[in-house]
Amino acid sequence: MSRPSIPQGTRDFGPEVVRKRSHILNVIKNVFELYGFQPLETPAMENLDTLMGKYGEEGDKLIFKILNNGLDNPAKEKQVREGFEKILQGRNPKGITERALKYDLTIPFARYVAMNHGQLTFPFKRYQIQPVWRADRPQKGRYREFYQCDADVVGSNSLLNEVELADIYTTVFEQLKIPVEIKINSRKILMALAELSAGADRMMDITVAIDKLDKVGLEKVKEDLVQRGLNLQAISVIENYLSISGTNEEKILKAKELLSSTAAGKKGIEELETILNYQLTTQPSSVTIDLTLARGLNYYTGTIFEVKAKNVQIGSIGGGGRYDDLTSLFGVPNIPGVGISFGVDRIYDVMEELDLFPEDVYIGSQVLFFNLGEKEGKEAFRLAQQLRSRNIRCEIYHEPGKFDKQFKYAEKKKIPFVIIIGEEEIKENICKVKNISTGEQKEIPVNELAAFSFK
Amino acid sequence: MSRPSIPQGTRDFGPEVVRKRSHILNVIKNVFELYGFQPLETPAMENLDTLMGKYGEEGDKLIFKILNNGLDNPAKEKQVREGFEKILQGRNPKGITERALKYDLTIPFARYVAMNHGQLTFPFKRYQIQPVWRADRPQKGRYREFYQCDADVVGSNSLLNEVELADIYTTVFEQLKIPVEIKINSRKILMALAELSAGADRMMDITVAIDKLDKVGLEKVKEDLVQRGLNLQAISVIENYLSISGTNEEKILKAKELLSSTAAGKKGIEELETILNYQLTTQPSSVTIDLTLARGLNYYTGTIFEVKAKNVQIGSIGGGGRYDDLTSLFGVPNIPGVGISFGVDRIYDVMEELDLFPEDVYIGSQVLFFNLGEKEGKEAFRLAQQLRSRNIRCEIYHEPGKFDKQFKYAEKKKIPFVIIIGEEEIKENICKVKNISTGEQKEIPVNELAAFSFK
Repeated sequence: MSRPSIPQGTRDFGPEVVRKRSHILNVIKNVFELYGFQPLETPAMENLDTLMGKYGEEGDKLIFKILNNGLDNPAKEKQVREGFEKILQGRNPKGITERALKYDLTIPFARYVAMNHGQLTFPFKRYQIQPVWRADRPQKGRYREFYQCDADVVGSNSLLNEVELADIYTTVFEQLKIPVEIKINSRKILMALAELSAGADRMMDITVAIDKLDKVGLEKVKEDLVQRGLNLQAISVIENYLSISGTNEEKILKAKELLSSTAAGKKGIEELETILNYQLTTQPSSVTIDLTLARGLNYYTGTIFEVKAKNVQIGSIGGGGRYDDLTSLFGVPNIPGVGISFGVDRIYDVMEELDLFPEDVYIGSQVLFFNLGEKEGKEAFRLAQQLRSRNIRCEIYHEPGKFDKQFKYAEKKKIPFVIIIGEEEIKENICKVKNISTGEQKEIPVNELAAFSFK
Repeated sequence: MSRPSIPQGTRDFGPEVVRKRSHILNVIKNVFELYGFQPLETPAMENLDTLMGKYGEEGDKLIFKILNNGLDNPAKEKQVREGFEKILQGRNPKGITERALKYDLTIPFARYVAMNHGQLTFPFKRYQIQPVWRADRPQKGRYREFYQCDADVVGSNSLLNEVELADIYTTVFEQLKIPVEIKINSRKILMALAELSAGADRMMDITVAIDKLDKVGLEKVKEDLVQRGLNLQAISVIENYLSISGTNEEKILKAKELLSSTAAGKKGIEELETILNYQLTTQPSSVTIDLTLARGLNYYTGTIFEVKAKNVQIGSIGGGGRYDDLTSLFGVPNIPGVGISFGVDRIYDVMEELDLFPEDVYIGSQVLFFNLGEKEGKEAFRLAQQLRSRNIRCEIYHEPGKFDKQFKYAEKKKIPFVIIIGEEEIKENICKVKNISTGEQKEIPVNELAAFSFK
């Protein structure tokens, strides 16, 4: 028997990790619900057709495909050979695989909306928190199975959605106590920049180059633009744009000077202004305009968002944007949408690094009843049942045993209180309650135990 | 573009279904935690080695295997051919698949314990609520992707575990308001029956035959036993055993008469008595001895459980039992355990049939603010933010629009309250709060809105 293991790039989550992850996910879920988003869950498997061709050529390769059933059986020789001949001829691989694990939550969501658009109430606001799978090379912080956590509104062009999504970011990170910068920009502004420099058809080139500004610096971005065939005049317009700085108001003013001669630029800047003004109704705006923000993914067409944790060296912990028409991929056009996502694994790492998990996240059982004999164990069980009916999590040590062993069990499991009931205690109708971290021990009459505060 | 669909036997869970399922899962999770069980999550994928050979030959076939990466690429012709030749020769299929989707939660749990036994605190009490996948033929109530929901204690022989697991069943079904019968028996008693009838080596034959008593009746069971080669004398002993009836106490008395001449019988009956006595410490026992209960799965060695919903025609909604040594499958012997599981899909169906879901499970947003113009929309947004900070779930209709349309949106989404803020209301510093189901409408000063009860 070889030592068991799990597939590369996958993880077991033990009790403490599950609790910490749940803390993050519950905060996010609760805020999504406060803003009227509703939960959706789609299957782990999708039809291969649904996924293929949606993530580019590289993406297609990273989709985990599921072997059609029975093909690991030698008796199916004919099917196996035929299926593989088709693949080898570069034709349809359906002979051996027709299903695959989902690669993100966006395409299955678009598929769901396309399948159910007749029954849904629009605008449809859904959130979805589920694992996805990618056959990427595993490395630090990159897994083959990981959770995505998305909220999207489809069927609405209103910028109120952007305002509320930005507020969701603000509220979630306030509640998690992570200091963040929420950046906002618009693909329309980037389109204007393209139009005014190298031409609208070069927008993706410019976007991809600018997207790296943070990491590589201005000189490298300029080199990249040269490589992409942009002339010096175009690059100088872009450089001028990238140099815009100041407060949100100052950036808007300068962007207007530079870009509002184009329809896209005018519209994009107006939209950012509207979003900021809406936010100002209730509080100082929590978002920062970052005109260099580009977001790699190319289906965005309007507002784009990105969230960075302050004081921590880590990539973005959230991002999103507006798209025109995702469901047209599945034959249902004209459903615009906007969405955001949270990078759960990175948020977890940030909270670890800044030590932000609340103390009670480490506590499973609140009380361990010592088990000191048959009669004593039964009395412990009786009292444990009383505490449980008051919603206090407790355990009785599974069998009569030495004090030491039972103490050690409580310590290892970080159980904060132990309750000791021996022969003497039963006679006197009391129990001893000991707080393990302070060492403090109290004698409590059993009929008062249910009112004791285990904090 | 063909109409999109999802793989056979899988399901999308829309908002209302997710909420109802969460209601069930939250109740179960909370009770697990009250009894000191801790959450564990394992990956969707396991190494093929971990799963193969653990579920019998039929089970092996129903495991979903994942195609090794890149094998749908014609450029990998050599690997593809070699991998398939190996399969066709009935040898190791690793050339094309090395990973598979988990088939249940028990084997991955055993694998986890075997991998981490040095670090774990025993007894290790874990619960796990995750999807599993089986390439079974889909039919009503049988899916290819479905949730399992298990709690197990490993590293303890104490019957206190059985007592608490039975209490978990009782508490969960009380909280869900499902009337149930919790049946209990012992594989040791069935072993004694085998020893006293056809011999210990026929125990599985007898177990499998008896397991069908409920469905097919006594005569068919007897025929089955004849077919399995049992003689009439043996069958008469079994018939005598199956006829035992009465209260728990009466059954124990009669079982003692019949079986306590064997060590297994004596032990099995003693164990049931201990469990029942423990339960009686706090309440009338909630379990019923059912000597005909057998449970198909063959790794059980001691106590076995099964839960049936009363007044509903449906199979068992829970089951479990004690096993000696699951982790020895992974090279780590001597870790006995006991566990139970909840049939989430069937519990859902029972709750639908008996109309047991609480009213508030149907409510997402509690309040819809009408959007009657730019200025009005901003005031709605300001007030919505106040309510959200009080943890009230609300939405603002996404754009200014007709009353009718906004009402319809609230109705379709089952939002119980709408708040109307028009020009007049802003002037008078009030808003109109309308309860959709009663039709009642109140004028509330805006500074009192935060204290309003949206129930």
